[in-house]
Amino acid sequence: MKKLKRSARIVDMTRKLLENPHTLISLTQFADEYASAKSSISEDLAIIKEVFEEQGVGFLRTVAGAAGGVIYIPYIDIVHARRFMESVIEMLSDPNRLLSGGYLYMSDLLGDPKKLGMIGKLFASVFYEREIDYVMTVETKGIPLAYAVANQLQVPVIIVRRDSQVTEGSVVTINYVSGSSKRIQTMSLGRRSMPEQSKVLIIDDFMKAGGTIRGMIDLLNEFNAEVAGIGVLVEATSTEERLVDRYLSLAELTAVDPREKKIEIRLGNYFQNHT
Amino acid sequence: MKKLKRSARIVDMTRKLLENPHTLISLTQFADEYASAKSSISEDLAIIKEVFEEQGVGFLRTVAGAAGGVIYIPYIDIVHARRFMESVIEMLSDPNRLLSGGYLYMSDLLGDPKKLGMIGKLFASVFYEREIDYVMTVETKGIPLAYAVANQLQVPVIIVRRDSQVTEGSVVTINYVSGSSKRIQTMSLGRRSMPEQSKVLIIDDFMKAGGTIRGMIDLLNEFNAEVAGIGVLVEATSTEERLVDRYLSLAELTAVDPREKKIEIRLGNYFQNHT
Repeated sequence: MKKLKRSARIVDMTRKLLENPHTLISLTQFADEYASAKSSISEDLAIIKEVFEEQGVGFLRTVAGAAGGVIYIPYIDIVHARRFMESVIEMLSDPNRLLSGGYLYMSDLLGDPKKLGMIGKLFASVFYEREIDYVMTVETKGIPLAYAVANQLQVPVIIVRRDSQVTEGSVVTINYVSGSSKRIQTMSLGRRSMPEQSKVLIIDDFMKAGGTIRGMIDLLNEFNAEVAGIGVLVEATSTEERLVDRYLSLAELTAVDPREKKIEIRLGNYFQNHT
Repeated sequence: MKKLKRSARIVDMTRKLLENPHTLISLTQFADEYASAKSSISEDLAIIKEVFEEQGVGFLRTVAGAAGGVIYIPYIDIVHARRFMESVIEMLSDPNRLLSGGYLYMSDLLGDPKKLGMIGKLFASVFYEREIDYVMTVETKGIPLAYAVANQLQVPVIIVRRDSQVTEGSVVTINYVSGSSKRIQTMSLGRRSMPEQSKVLIIDDFMKAGGTIRGMIDLLNEFNAEVAGIGVLVEATSTEERLVDRYLSLAELTAVDPREKKIEIRLGNYFQNHT
């Protein structure tokens, strides 16, 4: 590439970092690409780093050594996370969202690219140090959310099917008991989805008793995979029995009264651990 | 915000544009935010514009007038699009991907955030002038792809369900005939999904006869919505009867021979119209 002026180089470096989160970009690569001295590249990175940190975008981690370089880590701090989730909770507290069975209408939230991007970044901020190989979810509503998380972590997303599909090739199928309805259900995952020993982050949009997530954990056992973390957007706390122990929630649905048209939602356990 | 040095301001402007595609950002907003003169902001935008165009990232459209400003439009030109899709086709041509029923294993491609980002940008490049309000797909495999497109266009994604779900509230349900199996199937969409008169881009990962997409078109009629475009990643051309007329495909599966373990895939109709 032809030698760029400094300001042009900074534009392109900023773009490259933002488009490649959690990816090591070496100083040499930058220097070659812009036909610039490594010292100039380092100065530019210092400016980008400062702006990213000031604006709450994330941080740049410097890796020293011959193979060294820089990694952009998207990060939302607890203050911005709380402010954002409070706005989501306000949106979800509309009584018109009440559905039968104690469910909430959330399809609009789960389809909004801006909000999904923020929630994805939030989960990525929480779990980024766990060396995650895959983000997993079960069809259907949580898929855009899981993809948003995977996008920030730059790892593939894996979708568990509720029935076995020809398009997955050979599959591993398990039965599990839905925590709320106590019915026996099935989920399956293509054998080719991941190699053994993978570290997997489970993401879902809504958790009641946790039967579905319990099922995903059992399924991961069949792949000799490791559960690196569990994140749910909204959990319903009214359930008597919890089938999952350690998980992180961004919001809690504490009370639902369809007759009185009342919903109570508050910040999830992620924020309670941070007070 | 405190006054930033020029290079710092350019970092932040670049980020803001990239994170908000298809969104008008006014010069006044930039000028206020960085406590800078509009003339300086204009100069910075000229630099960003040049770099984006040179690097094939997209372009900046300037909107004149009092409410004027700048819009970042992600765009992949035909040369880069072709190069990228050729690499995808090479990946998909592996005979181990052959599944029974003439299907291809594509779950890894459809879960890869980098490749999905590129495909999403490609579809967004093709359809961006159609004033799209929503991107729609049917569960399950195409959802991350549809979200990737929606993310580039900054519009919500809507997911059609194959069965009616309590979490969607009241739904509109239609029956349709699968083009390949000739079986009657059902799809449904929550009433709250979109207002009437919406312009909708239909996105799917795979199309054989097109029965599923035909179903989505019928469903959109029930919402008095307009089909603003149809994009499929891979179409199978071996089908006798096509149930959909105007659609854009990025790849064509022209022959599948499970016995001989042979697949033939080539560039889709989007590229044929561009030669």
